[in-house]
Amino acid sequence: MLKICVMGLGYVGLPICLELSKKYSTTGFDINKLRVSNLKKKKDFNNEFKKQDFSNKKLIFTDKIEEIKSCNFYIICVPTPITKTKKPNLKYVKRCFDIISNILNKNDVIVLESTVFPGVTKNYARKLEIDNKLINNEDFFVCYSPERINPGDKENTLSKINKILAYEGKNKKIKKKLKDVYSKICRNLIFTDKIKEAETAKGIENIQRDLNIAFFNEILLICKKLNIEFNEVIRLAKTKWNFIEFSPGLVGGHCLPVDPYYLTYIANKKNYKSKVTLAGRSVNESMKSYALKTIYKRIKNLKKSKKSNIKICLFGLTYKYGVSDVRNSQNIEIFNLLKRKYKNTLAYDPFLKRNNFNWTKNKLNRYDLYVFLSKGKIFSKIYSNLKNKNKIVDPFFYYTN
Amino acid sequence: MLKICVMGLGYVGLPICLELSKKYSTTGFDINKLRVSNLKKKKDFNNEFKKQDFSNKKLIFTDKIEEIKSCNFYIICVPTPITKTKKPNLKYVKRCFDIISNILNKNDVIVLESTVFPGVTKNYARKLEIDNKLINNEDFFVCYSPERINPGDKENTLSKINKILAYEGKNKKIKKKLKDVYSKICRNLIFTDKIKEAETAKGIENIQRDLNIAFFNEILLICKKLNIEFNEVIRLAKTKWNFIEFSPGLVGGHCLPVDPYYLTYIANKKNYKSKVTLAGRSVNESMKSYALKTIYKRIKNLKKSKKSNIKICLFGLTYKYGVSDVRNSQNIEIFNLLKRKYKNTLAYDPFLKRNNFNWTKNKLNRYDLYVFLSKGKIFSKIYSNLKNKNKIVDPFFYYTN
Repeated sequence: MLKICVMGLGYVGLPICLELSKKYSTTGFDINKLRVSNLKKKKDFNNEFKKQDFSNKKLIFTDKIEEIKSCNFYIICVPTPITKTKKPNLKYVKRCFDIISNILNKNDVIVLESTVFPGVTKNYARKLEIDNKLINNEDFFVCYSPERINPGDKENTLSKINKILAYEGKNKKIKKKLKDVYSKICRNLIFTDKIKEAETAKGIENIQRDLNIAFFNEILLICKKLNIEFNEVIRLAKTKWNFIEFSPGLVGGHCLPVDPYYLTYIANKKNYKSKVTLAGRSVNESMKSYALKTIYKRIKNLKKSKKSNIKICLFGLTYKYGVSDVRNSQNIEIFNLLKRKYKNTLAYDPFLKRNNFNWTKNKLNRYDLYVFLSKGKIFSKIYSNLKNKNKIVDPFFYYTN
Repeated sequence: MLKICVMGLGYVGLPICLELSKKYSTTGFDINKLRVSNLKKKKDFNNEFKKQDFSNKKLIFTDKIEEIKSCNFYIICVPTPITKTKKPNLKYVKRCFDIISNILNKNDVIVLESTVFPGVTKNYARKLEIDNKLINNEDFFVCYSPERINPGDKENTLSKINKILAYEGKNKKIKKKLKDVYSKICRNLIFTDKIKEAETAKGIENIQRDLNIAFFNEILLICKKLNIEFNEVIRLAKTKWNFIEFSPGLVGGHCLPVDPYYLTYIANKKNYKSKVTLAGRSVNESMKSYALKTIYKRIKNLKKSKKSNIKICLFGLTYKYGVSDVRNSQNIEIFNLLKRKYKNTLAYDPFLKRNNFNWTKNKLNRYDLYVFLSKGKIFSKIYSNLKNKNKIVDPFFYYTN
């Protein structure tokens, strides 16, 4: 009988866990005790699931290895961040494989969903072989299935995405098992027998997006320098049949600012020094300082009396509109830097669990500057309601020209 | 009465000239005497128009300024290449404005269609003002309308594209005149009163494409280094809803390898050092040497007896499949370099006017190496017909994995 263990209960793991527990006996495992205890109480502080989503399921949450010992189908959904020196940090993936190594049984299936650079999955499979004196794709089965969760996206939800399943073995029963399990999560499964290719595919999807946003950011910076209306440029360029529209802005989160460094790390090891990929990163990483400069310039132009005790209101704190996640949020960094200098800095983000203040109770005309850092409907409405447009700072031209 | 003069009769000017002459008295002007004399004989060596396309039109071709003196609507369609040091070379545009300056009459309309960096159109308009002591947008009218001709594209033809018309004046009659003339060429006109924005829009359309191709090229190079199947990576990545497919390869022609340097030139003047834009160029410019290295490596692996007198057949000489244009063709450069080393190097390109040899009369098995440099139906068929796949060099994986 299939006993599933989902390791890592964040944005990727939890939805899979909840979905699979409708059909299979499923254990959600996380090393974060607080997260586990909240989930046991049917509370998701990521704000993605409600109490009723946890009901009536063959579902256990645990932080104890003891309780996943009897599982035979492991799905690893842990984060793969970067170190301070921007190298891949695989410690969470490593820890999962270490745990599995200690409780591995014959015929176990292990599916890695985390974003890694090409080669990682098979390296860990090899380690399992050595540690357990067993053979991958004979005694146990290590697969790769890149997650494609897009937080805040109501359209491309888990069930609708095309799910890649990379399995290099020949065992038809295992392939069927993979198909059975994953068809409960996603409608469309894309099989491949090439794991490195699947690992690379996942990376380049995000890098392409990061690079194209970087291009829009570069164009915005050039337009500012040349005193050209960015939005009019884009309006015109969009009329060409093959022009692709992106939005400029701060790039945060756990994917776009991270994934490029994974691919370039391994490429660099093989003596390929990436050119466009890291150039994209460099532009996007510079946008925080661009936004800050724009804000400081506006503060400088205020009257002296205002400057000393300026009241700033900032819109958009999470790493993108519509999500509650603040990991790698450049918005938060901007807020913190401003706050340090100007104690009357407040921020509003309806998607952040704990808001700095309740916007509706405040009066719109209380502030000296209104800074818009995110693009979305709610902020657009606030922008429209602001009477004194001279008080607005909109560094990415989301609402103004 | 409207008397139109189209200056520059290449890929951009000739189609406009032929189209407008159906309705208006039109003079096609070019400084290339040979081109003019051929066009007078209804011969287009660019292979885009047939004899009958020249019939029954109010059309004159000339290289004499005398014959365009009485025109009152100038459309400038001259090339804007780069110098050897990769700076914008505006000499052809300058020459057109110099000519117009000498024959300028009140109420003349001048539309620049060439790709330029933001500010160029108005600089020349200003020069016309000074030289003629007249005022732009009062006495004469300088507009900008970026060409969007895509050579070899049978789908996005001139009449179907959205045509941008940038006119900063307030004169409604002039706007109507522009509308009248250009509605004969294109179905959809997009008006703007911002010339610099239109100049920038044109630039970024091509830069975006160049950059995205560069990204595919970089991924290809990384895949080669890491021994990963490039085509499988793309097949998998394509299954994501927002992944955008491009083709890796040699980037040539008069747009993509040139336009980025226009925008970065003026950005640099304003102290913005472009990052992603030039990184894209750098990758794409390196692909010639990548292709050559791939070919040399294969030659090196041949038997000694073969190497000395190797017969190489190269497919694809023009800068892209489906066009006869060899300007900035990296394919031609590769051919020339190979030919210098290995005298039995031949090439086939069905779109090139004068082919090196007639492919159909040759036997497929005569060569030691078949090198594919372009992607397209005809070459794909040739590839399929080649029995000995070991003789094939396909550096961009157009036909092989």
